[in-house]
Amino acid sequence: MKYKREDLVNLLPYKPAKVKEVIRLHANESPYDLPQALKDSIFERVRGENFNYYYDPNCDELREALSEYLGIGPEKIFVGSGGDEIIYDIVLAFAGPGREVIIPVPSFPSYEIFSVISGAKVICVPLLLEEDSIHCSWKLDVSKIKSHFKKDVSQVMFICNPNNPTGDYFRDLDILELIEDFNGVVAIDEAYFEFGGKTFIKMISQFPNLVIIRTFSKVFSLAGLRIGYAVADENLIEELYKVKPPYNVNLFSQIAAVEILKHMDWVKEVKEKIINAREELKNKLKELPGITVYPSSTNFLLCKFKVPRDLVYKKLLEKGILVRKPEGKEVENMLRFSVGTPEQNEFLLKSLEEILKESMKL
Amino acid sequence: MKYKREDLVNLLPYKPAKVKEVIRLHANESPYDLPQALKDSIFERVRGENFNYYYDPNCDELREALSEYLGIGPEKIFVGSGGDEIIYDIVLAFAGPGREVIIPVPSFPSYEIFSVISGAKVICVPLLLEEDSIHCSWKLDVSKIKSHFKKDVSQVMFICNPNNPTGDYFRDLDILELIEDFNGVVAIDEAYFEFGGKTFIKMISQFPNLVIIRTFSKVFSLAGLRIGYAVADENLIEELYKVKPPYNVNLFSQIAAVEILKHMDWVKEVKEKIINAREELKNKLKELPGITVYPSSTNFLLCKFKVPRDLVYKKLLEKGILVRKPEGKEVENMLRFSVGTPEQNEFLLKSLEEILKESMKL
Repeated sequence: MKYKREDLVNLLPYKPAKVKEVIRLHANESPYDLPQALKDSIFERVRGENFNYYYDPNCDELREALSEYLGIGPEKIFVGSGGDEIIYDIVLAFAGPGREVIIPVPSFPSYEIFSVISGAKVICVPLLLEEDSIHCSWKLDVSKIKSHFKKDVSQVMFICNPNNPTGDYFRDLDILELIEDFNGVVAIDEAYFEFGGKTFIKMISQFPNLVIIRTFSKVFSLAGLRIGYAVADENLIEELYKVKPPYNVNLFSQIAAVEILKHMDWVKEVKEKIINAREELKNKLKELPGITVYPSSTNFLLCKFKVPRDLVYKKLLEKGILVRKPEGKEVENMLRFSVGTPEQNEFLLKSLEEILKESMKL
Repeated sequence: MKYKREDLVNLLPYKPAKVKEVIRLHANESPYDLPQALKDSIFERVRGENFNYYYDPNCDELREALSEYLGIGPEKIFVGSGGDEIIYDIVLAFAGPGREVIIPVPSFPSYEIFSVISGAKVICVPLLLEEDSIHCSWKLDVSKIKSHFKKDVSQVMFICNPNNPTGDYFRDLDILELIEDFNGVVAIDEAYFEFGGKTFIKMISQFPNLVIIRTFSKVFSLAGLRIGYAVADENLIEELYKVKPPYNVNLFSQIAAVEILKHMDWVKEVKEKIINAREELKNKLKELPGITVYPSSTNFLLCKFKVPRDLVYKKLLEKGILVRKPEGKEVENMLRFSVGTPEQNEFLLKSLEEILKESMKL
């Protein structure tokens, strides 16, 4: 087809796995659905809204609620249709043709895909893995990243913190050094913030080029509704409004997000259950043969295997468990497991134990 | 802010009017909200879904339902978050840096805005207005448009048919001539299809470069939920998947669209009420002094005034009626009125009569 974009010919769309009737440990979702009473309170409010009218283009009520949750003025908050839209809007507003996007990798694939689509040049800088018999950690290659900083080219940098798929925070000082030395927009993706509690959000008053990305798809358990937000200086936010589709967030999702922010007790409970389950899963995974488990401040765990990961992946799928094979040569023989319910995790552990013991024997 | 994109500095975002407590005749919405029973049936289904999981990334159930509605295979249908996302995806997939987008104007502003954001060069070609004492019609300037066709540059062309804001269909033969002679992707936006009934959708088998845009925001009365779709040859559809955010349509909207397609009797009733109201409104508007009413196959009417439109606009707003001032010098002294309920239209007529009679006296 001659009208295809030559620069997108080799672009593979991020293909979400499509499966039902399996244990979903592949997409870092919350394993807990909203209580029916909370769903009903959302329906009750939505019932009184006009489906036939375009809903609030600026998500005012939700931004007010978020302002209270964050302790940051609503004018510094921008809402999008999932973290994905926020990333897209950042790329479209600040990257684009003739510009560059720096991404420490491995990380969330959408940064790179959306950047390529915008027409920007993508620079991937591999993370450093420091590993000894007791500790291991993924570090930003600060000097390598800085070697790509340019004064005469507009650049954007994405830092996922804590990072997906590696699972833990980067060193604060490394991030700070990068922000301070960078001329372009720095996007820190804090999708997993609530599971670790550390944030750069207060830094937006100091750095007008800093934008924080957050989502309702993880601890807030609203992945199906697509709500994300950005927090930044007003001047930066203004540019995001330029590129967003006018009515980007549908009425149901706006109202659901407002309602769930009134039920932070439930969200906190979900958070604590997931963190406890993660720690337990981590400790038990470590006892399995031929596996390295990386530290995590998220709702998932990255693990390296001695046996081929494709084998483990396939055998898990046969048992009805879907996990994620992260992309990139840095994570070549690793799998990523989302933290499920205690029962799901127990089943994962039991299945892994069988698979690993059997494979090691071969 | 130095990291702003220079090519977007002068880009004004499409600013949706934000108003409550007024009669909304500015956004071509359906004036009819879904019956509560229909809303409840949607809630009932949504209630059983997991909000915490990402929902179907490919909208399979909805594409199946649309396939039945359209009589076209589901593999030729692509669903997006409103017509807006469809337009954005078309532009990102086929326009972009170094490419061109041809737009007959005046038309729906998003074509131009999204094209500029993609980095493409936009070529606007004014419509021709043929007007005498009895008839008037807006025509595509076929030869002028064709003079911009290039063999060595990849191009996209948008044709809104029936056109917003002018209101009526272009000549079939003009559109056909353009499609046949064009090397790039032709997007025909049929957002208002159901109010006129004429479509190019069957032509997709003949033209692999033709994509039809449709929406649930007009006669289907789901503007608040953001659902649009594209229909085209599979090869073209494949490119749209490359640029869409992975989980672009939220679960509530997917289910609502599926449910409303089961209630086509209600949709048909809405359509007939709006068409009848439009004809009545048109005939009564024509009786007012100092006004020209253009033909319409949509749910809105474009009108030219002898008195300054800003005055009419302001006075209508004072009476609680919000209408649209379309952009572009071709429609300089015109206003666009969405067709409301019979009561709303009656109030619009009465208000306009007062305003026009008073202004003509001055």
